[in-house]
Amino acid sequence: MHEPTLSIDLNSDLGEGFGRWELGDDDALLSIVTSANVACGFHAGDPSIMRRVCRTAVERGVAIGAQVGYRDLAGFGRRFIEVPPDILADEIVYQIGALDAFARLAGSQVAYVKPHGALYNAIVHHEDHAGAVVAAVRAYDPALPVLGLPGSVWLRLASEAGLTTVAECFADRAYTPEGTLVPRSHPGAVLHDPEEIARRTVQMARGEPIKAVDGSLLVVRARSVCVHGDSPGAVETARAVRETLVAHGVTPAPFVEPR
Amino acid sequence: MHEPTLSIDLNSDLGEGFGRWELGDDDALLSIVTSANVACGFHAGDPSIMRRVCRTAVERGVAIGAQVGYRDLAGFGRRFIEVPPDILADEIVYQIGALDAFARLAGSQVAYVKPHGALYNAIVHHEDHAGAVVAAVRAYDPALPVLGLPGSVWLRLASEAGLTTVAECFADRAYTPEGTLVPRSHPGAVLHDPEEIARRTVQMARGEPIKAVDGSLLVVRARSVCVHGDSPGAVETARAVRETLVAHGVTPAPFVEPR
Amino acid sequence: MHEPTLSIDLNSDLGEGFGRWELGDDDALLSIVTSANVACGFHAGDPSIMRRVCRTAVERGVAIGAQVGYRDLAGFGRRFIEVPPDILADEIVYQIGALDAFARLAGSQVAYVKPHGALYNAIVHHEDHAGAVVAAVRAYDPALPVLGLPGSVWLRLASEAGLTTVAECFADRAYTPEGTLVPRSHPGAVLHDPEEIARRTVQMARGEPIKAVDGSLLVVRARSVCVHGDSPGAVETARAVRETLVAHGVTPAPFVEPR
Amino acid sequence: MHEPTLSIDLNSDLGEGFGRWELGDDDALLSIVTSANVACGFHAGDPSIMRRVCRTAVERGVAIGAQVGYRDLAGFGRRFIEVPPDILADEIVYQIGALDAFARLAGSQVAYVKPHGALYNAIVHHEDHAGAVVAAVRAYDPALPVLGLPGSVWLRLASEAGLTTVAECFADRAYTPEGTLVPRSHPGAVLHDPEEIARRTVQMARGEPIKAVDGSLLVVRARSVCVHGDSPGAVETARAVRETLVAHGVTPAPFVEPR
Repeated sequence: MHEPTLSIDLNSDLGEGFGRWELGDDDALLSIVTSANVACGFHAGDPSIMRRVCRTAVERGVAIGAQVGYRDLAGFGRRFIEVPPDILADEIVYQIGALDAFARLAGSQVAYVKPHGALYNAIVHHEDHAGAVVAAVRAYDPALPVLGLPGSVWLRLASEAGLTTVAECFADRAYTPEGTLVPRSHPGAVLHDPEEIARRTVQMARGEPIKAVDGSLLVVRARSVCVHGDSPGAVETARAVRETLVAHGVTPAPFVEPR
Repeated sequence: MHEPTLSIDLNSDLGEGFGRWELGDDDALLSIVTSANVACGFHAGDPSIMRRVCRTAVERGVAIGAQVGYRDLAGFGRRFIEVPPDILADEIVYQIGALDAFARLAGSQVAYVKPHGALYNAIVHHEDHAGAVVAAVRAYDPALPVLGLPGSVWLRLASEAGLTTVAECFADRAYTPEGTLVPRSHPGAVLHDPEEIARRTVQMARGEPIKAVDGSLLVVRARSVCVHGDSPGAVETARAVRETLVAHGVTPAPFVEPR
Repeated sequence: MHEPTLSIDLNSDLGEGFGRWELGDDDALLSIVTSANVACGFHAGDPSIMRRVCRTAVERGVAIGAQVGYRDLAGFGRRFIEVPPDILADEIVYQIGALDAFARLAGSQVAYVKPHGALYNAIVHHEDHAGAVVAAVRAYDPALPVLGLPGSVWLRLASEAGLTTVAECFADRAYTPEGTLVPRSHPGAVLHDPEEIARRTVQMARGEPIKAVDGSLLVVRARSVCVHGDSPGAVETARAVRETLVAHGVTPAPFVEPR
Repeated sequence: MHEPTLSIDLNSDLGEGFGRWELGDDDALLSIVTSANVACGFHAGDPSIMRRVCRTAVERGVAIGAQVGYRDLAGFGRRFIEVPPDILADEIVYQIGALDAFARLAGSQVAYVKPHGALYNAIVHHEDHAGAVVAAVRAYDPALPVLGLPGSVWLRLASEAGLTTVAECFADRAYTPEGTLVPRSHPGAVLHDPEEIARRTVQMARGEPIKAVDGSLLVVRARSVCVHGDSPGAVETARAVRETLVAHGVTPAPFVEPR
């Protein structure tokens, strides 16, 4: 009798350079992760980076996701912008369309959408902006899954609109007993030990409880784990996560068939 | 016995505002022209303008073309930029992909590509940039026709690459006896009388000779006539051109079936 | 025995084009207003526009003010951006410095600072952003007056920091009995009749009561009246305001000596 | 009897990050060089970087120069742009003015101007653009020295316009027997050995001949040596250059008194 194969997706932000400026090691991460959130040029990324990342992603069986964000190169998409929702929706459509061109050139398609930075954080609770991103994805292609924080307004509205929603968890972040992330401003909010991060990832993948910040046990359910790509030691941590998963019989695999 | 119906395409640059700034009367021109060269956000245009223009174009049976250009909002794409050809090709793919998203949202597709401003002028002779735009169109969709100046390196390379090429003429520009445009810096280079412009358009559509700048006769063959959209009186001239064509039995129609 | 001469400043947003795009009639307004709020390139304006507006302003004795805003060309500075206050302060210094270069080329200097759009609105209440702009002006030149809404956090913090504050009123806006502006979303918030606008300006300049939106009487004290420059009929209204002021013995004059 | 003290300036491009993106090690280089060419936000640099670099430069007695360039963040100022000369001049004034604001905040002033990238290369021969930059500097402050390539149109026109010109040499570049730089595309154009680079710098500072690319001897006269800041090993090479100069009795010092 066979146990069912256990698999989990590893997603990471990629293609976040701009022109002369590089950020993170796209090539190394594309050998580790299974889903690439590719910046689309509004807060990071440029056409040539998008082409290169898409090509390599396809070569390595990595799913291409649209890392959409506010129009804010100077702020790397990390500042909330009170843009009217209809304009935001148009900006999201624009970004997905541009990335899809490069995904198709590489023989694939955009396989999912994951908002970035301040937009990611805003749509946890901001109904209008969450609704705008949902409307944009739905208009572009209602079959596109969306990736985000469990419990967010974003995933709720997406689900209500008929989109496929995928929850992600963070292996390098402390959780409250309620299952929300400990804010970055708190001590201990971010984990740095690759071994601990890898061990937690295995626990999350297996549906086993992890320790919340207060020591209590918590089960975090998610089909994808976000692996950070641009912090010091990011590649080493990501590699440790992947290797530990494999060693424990968990297969890293995209949550969506790369198209 | 019936004469074959004579038709000609009227193309115009549209969607050239940006954010708060408007340029030209998109709505009026979309009731006059048959092909809309829609700016894609690199030298003009923004996502919301692109959405609106595409929707109206589709409602009125106007073909949507990608008005691609150098990345140069400050210069409206009117300054030559010595960008490496491979980067230029990526920028063109990006622009077409972004516009195509809005064309598809409106139930259509990008139906052709027409470079803008300094890029239009450069690729009359600049082999590397012409080749880059050809490569971009071919990679995006080899079935996309391209629009440009007869005799340009751009149309020659496009044709050699297997793309469908469409020649355009200018009803409001004086021609040399050799069939090239009289440079704008020369007196008499630009015609302003709507009646004269309309009459020349009819002659061009019929394959009849027009008067070159030296008074000699010249036949200009083109399937599309470029109508300028952002000069004073542009809408009136465009309307006069259309009405005169119709009055002379020439039907304005896109050179390519709006997809 | 002489009555003291009554004078009031007329300020208007100018230089708000960008590259190919024009907005408002800078030249006409520079013959009407006494203080020009010149956009500095972050939400509108470009170096060549700044040079031209500064030169004409100096020729006509118009004071040059820095119209500073969020970094947001796509949104014309009309969207609140949650930029960290220290970065905002640096952006304000940058904008003032850039404009000052052109003011000095024209033989003058930046004579005051007036925030624009979403920044203007935000710092009515947003302590951190108000403080950032105050810090920037103070660091650049503590002798620079600042212009703004009476009762705003912006003017309060500026005053506390030792800056000279100048209150402005709006001749084309309805006031609540408490002296605040009726929000634009309410009916009757914006006045359109040039005669009425001009009459109210005279009343405000004289310290006479105007009618609040509920019909009660209200005295609005301000040394400067904001005249809108980019709405339809803006020039005509501004001219009517100026002529009516003069006809009633009120001299339009900058609140600060053009430097 | 004393020998006259021998000194030479070490200049380097600094402040070339943008928002989230870093480039080079500004802090380390500001302990090595004597003149900082600070990017002004048009091709690199942003207000907060400008403030930080200016403050540290002043603390360490490093002269602040305006690293002006084409408006081209996407291309890092490395692409020639055929911008009309009067617009280019305005863009240069804008950049100097913006940087000067931060230099003054730090208690200093912009002490010189050095064009960057494609602009640097263009004005070696491009009369119109060279003239535009000269006109801009002269209009901003005719006492500002300019830094550039000996024999360039840029330094010739600057000198004819009455500006103080300062020639620079490159310690890590091979020279032709005629004293021009061997193009980067040629093998051996760029030197990588820190010791060799340091030795050549000493020779140049002393007015001693260096070996040209063909082995012949050549005297390169320059008051400033350009040290590259953003290549791998840049800081180490720069430090070796400085230490070798000092060990050979050559004092690194700005060519212009930091103001």
